[in-house]
Amino acid sequence: MTILDIIAAKRDGLKHTKPELDWLASVAARGEIPDYQIAAWLMAAYLHPLDAEETAWLTLAMADSGERLDLTGLPKPWVDKHSTGGVGDKTSIVLLPLLAACGLTVIKMSGRGLGITGGTVDKLLSVPGFRMDLSPDQLKDQAKGIGLAISGQTPNLAPADKVFYALRDATATVGSIPLIVSSILSKKIAGGAETVVLDVKAGSGAFMKTLDAARELANALAATAKLAGLNARLAITDMSQPLGRTVGNALEVGEAGMVLTGNEPSRFCELCVDLAALTLVAAGETWDMDTGREKARRAFASGQALQKAEAWFEAQGGDPAVLVRPDKLPRAPVQKQVFAGRAGWIEEIHADIVGQVVVELGGGRTKKEDRIDPSVGVEVHREVGLPVASDQPVFTIHARDEASCGAAVERLTKSVSISLEPVSTIGPVIEIV
Amino acid sequence: MTILDIIAAKRDGLKHTKPELDWLASVAARGEIPDYQIAAWLMAAYLHPLDAEETAWLTLAMADSGERLDLTGLPKPWVDKHSTGGVGDKTSIVLLPLLAACGLTVIKMSGRGLGITGGTVDKLLSVPGFRMDLSPDQLKDQAKGIGLAISGQTPNLAPADKVFYALRDATATVGSIPLIVSSILSKKIAGGAETVVLDVKAGSGAFMKTLDAARELANALAATAKLAGLNARLAITDMSQPLGRTVGNALEVGEAGMVLTGNEPSRFCELCVDLAALTLVAAGETWDMDTGREKARRAFASGQALQKAEAWFEAQGGDPAVLVRPDKLPRAPVQKQVFAGRAGWIEEIHADIVGQVVVELGGGRTKKEDRIDPSVGVEVHREVGLPVASDQPVFTIHARDEASCGAAVERLTKSVSISLEPVSTIGPVIEIV
Repeated sequence: MTILDIIAAKRDGLKHTKPELDWLASVAARGEIPDYQIAAWLMAAYLHPLDAEETAWLTLAMADSGERLDLTGLPKPWVDKHSTGGVGDKTSIVLLPLLAACGLTVIKMSGRGLGITGGTVDKLLSVPGFRMDLSPDQLKDQAKGIGLAISGQTPNLAPADKVFYALRDATATVGSIPLIVSSILSKKIAGGAETVVLDVKAGSGAFMKTLDAARELANALAATAKLAGLNARLAITDMSQPLGRTVGNALEVGEAGMVLTGNEPSRFCELCVDLAALTLVAAGETWDMDTGREKARRAFASGQALQKAEAWFEAQGGDPAVLVRPDKLPRAPVQKQVFAGRAGWIEEIHADIVGQVVVELGGGRTKKEDRIDPSVGVEVHREVGLPVASDQPVFTIHARDEASCGAAVERLTKSVSISLEPVSTIGPVIEIV
Repeated sequence: MTILDIIAAKRDGLKHTKPELDWLASVAARGEIPDYQIAAWLMAAYLHPLDAEETAWLTLAMADSGERLDLTGLPKPWVDKHSTGGVGDKTSIVLLPLLAACGLTVIKMSGRGLGITGGTVDKLLSVPGFRMDLSPDQLKDQAKGIGLAISGQTPNLAPADKVFYALRDATATVGSIPLIVSSILSKKIAGGAETVVLDVKAGSGAFMKTLDAARELANALAATAKLAGLNARLAITDMSQPLGRTVGNALEVGEAGMVLTGNEPSRFCELCVDLAALTLVAAGETWDMDTGREKARRAFASGQALQKAEAWFEAQGGDPAVLVRPDKLPRAPVQKQVFAGRAGWIEEIHADIVGQVVVELGGGRTKKEDRIDPSVGVEVHREVGLPVASDQPVFTIHARDEASCGAAVERLTKSVSISLEPVSTIGPVIEIV
């Protein structure tokens, strides 16, 4: 088997065999074939997409290209959660302790954000002292003790995916559904979880801009997970408006803390409850979604979710006080409100524009090397569907200086449309796949 | 303009603009984009082939990615010749001095061989002392003096092609007709010629194995040359049996010398005469092929072609005596004849097998880095169509040792088929495009 045979086969639209994909992932992981040959294969695979079986084979091949995390010894069920990313998506910070409070063992590998979709790693690193560099053994020890752990350090987890991922970004092959699917699922499988809930976001603030595109990805994820033997459940959730009432790293941690106290019933909280219920059903802990939701709400109300989060922050070196005292988080020097300007009902808040504004304020990356400012961001005071008076604030900008703040005011004003009539809204969860 | 935009455009099957291809060739030539991005573009361009206009734009962009050789000051017409390569193809060694003897100025950049198709550079380097490293100024000075010059050193000639060429080889994208066409023609245009004769070989011993494939390439070459403003003529010529009666570097130089003396009327000599006539017509020196052929034959008969070749070898440091004294060329220690074994008419001599045998004897490369042995090769004593007695030799092997010679005997025996009936033959030139 040579890399030229493999490139030529996919170039000609032939179906790969399992041994071919095993070999490809292993030599890619070991750095034994040059980037330009992988790049040529990626483009061939973009234009002749892998079928369901090939995608599952590639997923498993990438999962086995490094070490798999072995969770033996931890209480079952072992669960993980993944989101395809969105503007204001701090779901993991709420959902992980919530699930742990419900008795599940949650281990998550998380990535940094790029573009308008922020990463959980960056959000948690805005908490003074929080450590994301846990080794596999530290992850397991911590999960054994408190039921959850997260790490951003995954040196030998699905190393083939790291090679492919970097090259996809540089070769305009990011959009291939089978390549996206194998990238996501290989890491979940290598991470050791048996049950995974996948949150596929749809809308302007997500990678999949339309519901159809999100459905295509969700169906492919479901089909591949099944073929690869992974117990996965999927939700397609709305990302047309920013998720929750904050966008920006420290601001989102503060919001997550408020939701964990149970004192902030909101659309975002509803999403967390729904995803928790879906996970509980998937893991066989409850029979139906309603019982799952009830269990999740009780974990909020009883304070157990918050306690789990505090134990988690403490275990990873972060100050747990930030969960109830958001003023202890980094705070930007300049704040400014943006008002509705006219009365009516909020018809749209373009998530992509709000996300872009936060990147431009310094709260996100346009290149992998960019440093981010944890303190900047945007508060979103009104959701789509709510009435608003002309002198009510819709946003509060948190900026490093007046100049960047002024630019943000202008952009944000254009991100909102206000209707003179009441408008209909959609729930945070659009579909369960 | 970014490389990602360009990759994405071709990935999506869009037509490139001229500025896009100009930019691509120039940044590729300057090494400003990584190989993996060029590789992704090459695969996209393989699967969404460039149209005629894009191919012409890319050709000119690659020609202008370095310096063009300016032949101003040399007598016109300025001609060049290119072959797509074949087994035993020593045509340039005869045709160049022949054309110079007919009063044309011939400057040729030549490449090394890879695989079963040998390169003119390698053949001429089997002549003791022959220098292929002429600079542009040396090329021009020599052509001014004697009407012809050849060089294998082209550091800044179409440098974008060098980048693309190396990557095509490594990414299974060699077979794309528009990429082949732009590679060939960009070098011809950068080489300064105004009239170019292109010999597209068809058959088992060529890159294009079938007449249909050769026609497709020839038509694409003709269309692109026209759009790029290059005066090109094309011949599709037979490469199903080895060309001439030798395959192997020094052996082929010896054969070329014999043809130049005018003492060896043969199918190969006929090809040289036809291509010379085509060049003379293309350059406007004669009105029709028959007059051109007559002129070429006179150049042989009068000794002018041989004199030109001797002056050429001398000018480039090679011993001109080898042209009439092939015993002065490197000679392999072991020679062995392969006999017909049965009487009849030669029906087929598989050029690809003979070419492969010469590579295995050490006379060709399987990798760019391979060193070649100039002395080894195969003499082919009988052409297709000729009668043969069972005890007549069909081949003489020239080998380094008995072991490699023995292996060659076995392979060569299988390369010939002998018919009990007379067989029809085709001329060396199949079509003029």
